Amino acid sequence: MTHKKRICILTDGHLDPFDAKTAVGLLRYRPDEVVAVLDPNHAGENLEDLVGCGAGVPIVESIESASRYQPDHLLIGVAPPGGRLPADWRRFIRQGLAAGMNVINGLHDRLGDDPEFAEAAAQRGLTILDVRAVPRPASVGTAKAARTRARRVLTVGTDCNIGKRLTAMELTRALSDRGLRAEFVATGQTGVMITGSGVVVDAVISDFVSGAIEAAILEKGDADCIVVEGQGALLHPSYSAVALGLLHGTLPDRMILCHAPQRKTLRNIDIPIPPLNEVIQLYEAIVRPLHPAKVVGVALNGHGMSDAAISASIEQVRDLTGLPVVDCIRTGVGELADAVCAA
Amino acid sequence: MTHKKRICILTDGHLDPFDAKTAVGLLRYRPDEVVAVLDPNHAGENLEDLVGCGAGVPIVESIESASRYQPDHLLIGVAPPGGRLPADWRRFIRQGLAAGMNVINGLHDRLGDDPEFAEAAAQRGLTILDVRAVPRPASVGTAKAARTRARRVLTVGTDCNIGKRLTAMELTRALSDRGLRAEFVATGQTGVMITGSGVVVDAVISDFVSGAIEAAILEKGDADCIVVEGQGALLHPSYSAVALGLLHGTLPDRMILCHAPQRKTLRNIDIPIPPLNEVIQLYEAIVRPLHPAKVVGVALNGHGMSDAAISASIEQVRDLTGLPVVDCIRTGVGELADAVCAA
Repeated sequence: MTHKKRICILTDGHLDPFDAKTAVGLLRYRPDEVVAVLDPNHAGENLEDLVGCGAGVPIVESIESASRYQPDHLLIGVAPPGGRLPADWRRFIRQGLAAGMNVINGLHDRLGDDPEFAEAAAQRGLTILDVRAVPRPASVGTAKAARTRARRVLTVGTDCNIGKRLTAMELTRALSDRGLRAEFVATGQTGVMITGSGVVVDAVISDFVSGAIEAAILEKGDADCIVVEGQGALLHPSYSAVALGLLHGTLPDRMILCHAPQRKTLRNIDIPIPPLNEVIQLYEAIVRPLHPAKVVGVALNGHGMSDAAISASIEQVRDLTGLPVVDCIRTGVGELADAVCAA
Repeated sequence: MTHKKRICILTDGHLDPFDAKTAVGLLRYRPDEVVAVLDPNHAGENLEDLVGCGAGVPIVESIESASRYQPDHLLIGVAPPGGRLPADWRRFIRQGLAAGMNVINGLHDRLGDDPEFAEAAAQRGLTILDVRAVPRPASVGTAKAARTRARRVLTVGTDCNIGKRLTAMELTRALSDRGLRAEFVATGQTGVMITGSGVVVDAVISDFVSGAIEAAILEKGDADCIVVEGQGALLHPSYSAVALGLLHGTLPDRMILCHAPQRKTLRNIDIPIPPLNEVIQLYEAIVRPLHPAKVVGVALNGHGMSDAAISASIEQVRDLTGLPVVDCIRTGVGELADAVCAA
């Protein structure tokens, strides 16, 4: 996304910060390019109240009402498990193309391969960008990332969908503010949409996950610091393969653990999230034989919690782990930047 | 492979049991379908001396000399890291097709998509079977395998390329011999080529690794026992993503650890293999929060070791781990079958 776009984000029926994480990421980091959010259930409501960002961006009920804001792109703003297009969303894509909007899609389902959409786009000279298109197999990872000049930092999680991208982006900004040459490496559809670069690792053929991130890191290897967006979670049965491939491809020097205090079971799976220290030990143990790395800080996701509740959680987790603990939104990530920079 | 084939296996320059693991798997489990091995470096030598199986199968130097044995299939018998076709093998494929052989390929490189090969095959009515073709995304894994009636067993490794398929196949046979309904689930190109079913998980898009194996297991869920072929290794930076996706998709009740006593560093990577007990603890720890499973036995790969040396290793590993230890080829897997059947 090098040119300034006018984006209408589609979130129909999923407008909460976890389901609509792609939408929320764009709203937070590309606010001047989002002109409307399309969600009939919430049309006319205040976006910032609903998802914590996007002040002033209207929520509209249809492609027709979105058109008033002259969008030139329709962006799929959700990331459902499995990445399939909800069946009743076809009409939005159809209407969006008919109204002259290009489509940006981060689902596994490739919309550019859909005959109806492809034809509609071709007729109007529009593009359909499938961000998660499967990259060509490159090579397997071979632990070469460990050799970079740059200090490598990876955000990891007690669960998926918990703030790893946000934490990584905020940390990169904080490190840059300190005068360091800090590079962010996007590894998911939202991060790639926001920054225009990176690799959507969950769309890579499994044999090449660590190789794909290794290559992305080596490209930026002479920075001072590389902050890699983690994916999934080491103990989430849906996404652990991606999480470990990323960990062994990155071979971080430091890890930041992301956690949501109110989350008791794994997202969409009825299995308890283990105690925080157990998760930390496991992340450290699974990478130690290849390249030892410590979790040096914790980022809490305080969405839906009061200021008092998140403050109490921060204290509690600090006592439990002995690590610096932040809420990226409320406290900022200064303490994490300190921990990353420490010798 | 339901009809009996006449297979010429191509291993040119890679005829050792590790590089040519696909060849060796076919020779061991489909001996009556292999009519020749094509490897100019070893033409005329004794195959069994070289790789420990394949007695009586000739090693030939060219497609022309293979033709004497009337092969109807040319099978790529190696599995190099990254799965690319060695450039100088194109001539063998070309000549094989010209000589009327169908092609069976387990590399990531899809030969059926290669214009030259596709045209040559079409002209002669031959087929090119790409066993590792990327399956269509299905759904992410959701820990459902844990609900099968069948006891699930997974072979895991201290390294890749160490005997996980052989161990799983031998174990399945031993369990069947005891009157149990035991099902083997192939997860790699060789296993799929041998059995004609399964899923090549390292070719699955990373988001769907655990889902793909979960689906394969649920299909056989009412057997007494399902033995799943492991892939890669939890600590191998090239293949750990696949290994963990398989572990969390299978959610085994029991694991068998495969190990090669003479292997000191990870295959193709200059990193030491950690002590056996550390590896066992890590496999158990990384699956415990989802579905607790113990490593109940160790299978040693004694290739290249004397009988005395492997006997000593068996004793040593037994003392170290307190577990039953076998060499699948020399001692058989009876003790592993006991451990799997134990309450």
